[in-house]
Amino acid sequence: MLVFDNYPSGLTYSQSSKSWRVRAVKPVEYEVRVCEGVFDPASTALIEQTADAAGGNRRFVVIDAEVDRLHGERIRRYFEHHGVDYFLQVVRADETLKEFETASDIVVALDSFGLDRRREPMIVIGGGVLMDIVCLVANLYRRGTPVVRVPTTLIGLVDAGVGVKTGVNFNGHKNRLGTYFAPVLTLLDRSFLTTVDRRHIANGMGEILKMALIKDVRLFELLEQHGPALIERKFQDDGRGGDPADEVLRRAIHGMLEELQPNLWEAELERIVDYGHTFSPTLEMRALPALLHGEAVTVDMALTTLLAWRRGLVDLEQRDRILAVMRALELPSWNELLDADLLDAALQDTIRHRDGQQRLPLPAGIGDAVFVNDVTREELAVAVEDLRVLNSRELSRV
Amino acid sequence: MLVFDNYPSGLTYSQSSKSWRVRAVKPVEYEVRVCEGVFDPASTALIEQTADAAGGNRRFVVIDAEVDRLHGERIRRYFEHHGVDYFLQVVRADETLKEFETASDIVVALDSFGLDRRREPMIVIGGGVLMDIVCLVANLYRRGTPVVRVPTTLIGLVDAGVGVKTGVNFNGHKNRLGTYFAPVLTLLDRSFLTTVDRRHIANGMGEILKMALIKDVRLFELLEQHGPALIERKFQDDGRGGDPADEVLRRAIHGMLEELQPNLWEAELERIVDYGHTFSPTLEMRALPALLHGEAVTVDMALTTLLAWRRGLVDLEQRDRILAVMRALELPSWNELLDADLLDAALQDTIRHRDGQQRLPLPAGIGDAVFVNDVTREELAVAVEDLRVLNSRELSRV
Repeated sequence: MLVFDNYPSGLTYSQSSKSWRVRAVKPVEYEVRVCEGVFDPASTALIEQTADAAGGNRRFVVIDAEVDRLHGERIRRYFEHHGVDYFLQVVRADETLKEFETASDIVVALDSFGLDRRREPMIVIGGGVLMDIVCLVANLYRRGTPVVRVPTTLIGLVDAGVGVKTGVNFNGHKNRLGTYFAPVLTLLDRSFLTTVDRRHIANGMGEILKMALIKDVRLFELLEQHGPALIERKFQDDGRGGDPADEVLRRAIHGMLEELQPNLWEAELERIVDYGHTFSPTLEMRALPALLHGEAVTVDMALTTLLAWRRGLVDLEQRDRILAVMRALELPSWNELLDADLLDAALQDTIRHRDGQQRLPLPAGIGDAVFVNDVTREELAVAVEDLRVLNSRELSRV
Repeated sequence: MLVFDNYPSGLTYSQSSKSWRVRAVKPVEYEVRVCEGVFDPASTALIEQTADAAGGNRRFVVIDAEVDRLHGERIRRYFEHHGVDYFLQVVRADETLKEFETASDIVVALDSFGLDRRREPMIVIGGGVLMDIVCLVANLYRRGTPVVRVPTTLIGLVDAGVGVKTGVNFNGHKNRLGTYFAPVLTLLDRSFLTTVDRRHIANGMGEILKMALIKDVRLFELLEQHGPALIERKFQDDGRGGDPADEVLRRAIHGMLEELQPNLWEAELERIVDYGHTFSPTLEMRALPALLHGEAVTVDMALTTLLAWRRGLVDLEQRDRILAVMRALELPSWNELLDADLLDAALQDTIRHRDGQQRLPLPAGIGDAVFVNDVTREELAVAVEDLRVLNSRELSRV
């Protein structure tokens, strides 16, 4: 649904206070499109969108090294088939390489390519980490270069490829340097998931489960019902009708975009999509490289589900359904690094990030969320202990 | 003058194309205020603007090393007087240090300070280079931290402190990495100019002269009439009434803001304020550290004035008045690095920056400008030769 709003813009000067006030409005628009077979020779979605009206046909493409190994030949053939003068920058990317140095290597290659910042959009083909890095480069390069994203992982499809956040880790802090920068377009091609390993499929499931828990009980039920099969079939259509993989992806993406669109620059700090992202940034960085992003988020969600349970926000049956889905999705609900000190450090950093308050989203039943500002150290210690006990009980059962 | 415009915002999904379209609007507002004696104990402009409604009173301040040497004691006393819990990060900044490494050192210090990104605005006290670096840091740190600027040089007062561009040099290119990021407030305190040396005053005059040439004949006349005296008195009021320094500053700033406000993100690439900035970025970087920014801009303006004269856009009398003002303002109109190769490389880079066209602003008489797209190598060679001859003639006259 579109609304039209009035915004003031202009320059005013006050003689009495000798002061100018500058007001301006930046409209931002981008597209996220489901597009299976982006690199099939017959597909023109990528070419159309990035075609140069003035006739040029050069493209600077950043591709994840693993994706290049698996799909590089096909991708090169695609650009050659369409007569594109392309340069493929192959980049190794994982959380430990999500650093400014990786971004600056790309900038050097861009300079060599001699990119025209308005006519020649960059293309990034890879997972969430690479998209975050390349979109930061796109924002910074000559103060803004258009970029088209082709996510190749599940977390890329449902999370990193959907929003506008860019970033690199810095000084031991996750995404400490970053911006908000809208791509021109994201093309969602789930056929890439066929070459993603089980663990990275599960990783993406962590972010899908987040959307389910905070706002979409139907999505939660779909995960309960089809989760293991989705992992098994790597989100490909089983041809038996219904295509639950497609429904899960679309619900997760739609829910995410509903939350992001009215708050694209995060002026509002109470964001339900921050669920699972209060303690996990610190946990993920300290555990590096042991935990993937979606895994760290799931550990955070397990912890906060127990917190919510102790507060009566989630009942025992709901608590156990949530933890059971985490297991069914092959996601961890415990990490040995969890202790009072880590949680306290994480909470303090989050409070600084959220303007002096916790603004901690907690599940309220399944499919809804509330915000709290009064979580105590003691409460966290109880939740950690609950989680430890439940986890060891689960282990002894196996 | 304010206008009110309607912008669409919202999320739409097309079932047929399986595509979401995200539209959002970012309103931006900032203030540029003349404020003499910012650090007089009685002045509260800096404190008021950055006061924390919630009661905190911590400030992370980045200060130029030279400004700290000259004014640091007074500035520390100011913060202490107002009971501010401040940390002063002293940074050496000149064009050769306008690098990401300088920015990243500031980020490390910010992490140590534990800045609250919404409540504790950063303050930058220094020249254009430092403001560009710190505002880039402010944009990147936790994806956006408010910043208040106190420019201490003339170029900072009339140029870098007025707009929203941030940046660092990279890979031998000027401002290759940067963003658009509005500060909360700039406080313009010309009393800092009393400790700026003649050459750096002249440097700022280069940007003032640019505004005069492209849109303000009255400003040009003021520079003709008062230029040398303004340099001599370092823009302080001579007490004889009229205060031409104040008028020059205000006209230059107002003209700049008039040009920037409707085009804050440079969607429109024909920008008259780009005058003097076609060949100078390459010249400035190659000559580093020999030429200051405003000096390189003036060499570019001298060259393009001759180009405009050969095209009949500027007559002989206007040409010589322009060159005479440059001399009177103690600015260079020639540099030994100027040759066909440098100009060609510079033009190619500018064309890439301006979406495949030259979009070269040229003076049309004094106080007006036109854009051209058809400047040739031959024409540039003639202009360089003209400038070389005029310059050596001038030298022999001295």
